[in-house]
Amino acid sequence: MPQGQPTVVPDDGLTTRQRRNRPLVLVHTGVGKGKSTAAFGLALRAWNQSWPVGVFQFVKSAKWRVGEERALRVLGESGEGGTVAWHKMGEGWSWLQRSQQDAISSEEAAREGWEQVKRDLAAETYRLYVLDEFAYPMHWGWVDTDEVVSVLRDRPGTQHVVITGRNAPQKLLDFADLVTDMSKVKHPMDAGQKGQRGIEW
Amino acid sequence: MPQGQPTVVPDDGLTTRQRRNRPLVLVHTGVGKGKSTAAFGLALRAWNQSWPVGVFQFVKSAKWRVGEERALRVLGESGEGGTVAWHKMGEGWSWLQRSQQDAISSEEAAREGWEQVKRDLAAETYRLYVLDEFAYPMHWGWVDTDEVVSVLRDRPGTQHVVITGRNAPQKLLDFADLVTDMSKVKHPMDAGQKGQRGIEW
Repeated sequence: MPQGQPTVVPDDGLTTRQRRNRPLVLVHTGVGKGKSTAAFGLALRAWNQSWPVGVFQFVKSAKWRVGEERALRVLGESGEGGTVAWHKMGEGWSWLQRSQQDAISSEEAAREGWEQVKRDLAAETYRLYVLDEFAYPMHWGWVDTDEVVSVLRDRPGTQHVVITGRNAPQKLLDFADLVTDMSKVKHPMDAGQKGQRGIEW
Repeated sequence: MPQGQPTVVPDDGLTTRQRRNRPLVLVHTGVGKGKSTAAFGLALRAWNQSWPVGVFQFVKSAKWRVGEERALRVLGESGEGGTVAWHKMGEGWSWLQRSQQDAISSEEAAREGWEQVKRDLAAETYRLYVLDEFAYPMHWGWVDTDEVVSVLRDRPGTQHVVITGRNAPQKLLDFADLVTDMSKVKHPMDAGQKGQRGIEW
């Protein structure tokens, strides 16, 4: 990780401390592994700081994050560190009524997830938001990237947001404070090996 | 993540299941963020599978992983999931005697850490090894990459190993099953912002 002195000191009227603690938007994109895994690793750091963490899983299947979900649930309930709220689109967002959950399409569900994120940002519910796979609904045009950027730009307080997923729109990358591209150099799938328990989920 | 059918089905005499559960060597390298964070995210999955996890931190300062260490300690002691053993080079490896810890150089400490990893691999102590920042001692020539590859190739049982750090040697990449390069697209440091608590550590 980068250490030491920044190469540029901006003329923004902020002290080093103010600048240092500026809330961040982080994007993990690219076709390689580690985008979501690194986001959940960040959640461990946030938990350690006793921050309330909100996870929004913008994926249909809830299969792939079972390990992370259980770990963060145990951590959130441990009485140490911060709290963790875990929201899954795959099973219908829990704040929707049963009848709504059954009737909703993936596109509507993604949009409804984003509406809740907006409500939580306005209410400053969490200090770290993990918007897992949220790049997809933007890429597909289900959620308007301009609106996302605008809402993130105007969010109140000190709320960090990490967004994962392939094909993150350029407008989001332009706005984000930190962007990491996870590139696949080599994957066992190339050698005919399928994903395995404990490694892929 | 890659899903569905592999494009190549190797003629290795293994069933799909045997091939699927083949123990893996994973490398997270590159100059971007997320290498270690993603490795600790993997540890959450391993914990969820009730695997014994061994973390070896090949860094002098123990400052940067406080969140992950505390989280994995709480998880390991929760009575759910697997166990977690956390070994730090920064404070002198705990299996060394006090007098050895004080006298040891960074190079010797790195080598001593690798010797312990070898002993644990031979004894099949863990099912996932996180060798955090282990690419550096190889890159610097403190630990012989040929020997690492040879030991990993011949390791018994089902032991997964994830190695992080910039400048991972090509020989290691050639041998590894999965390599992800974390590329920096944009970092707050570029805009004059230093690392902050809860995000960088």
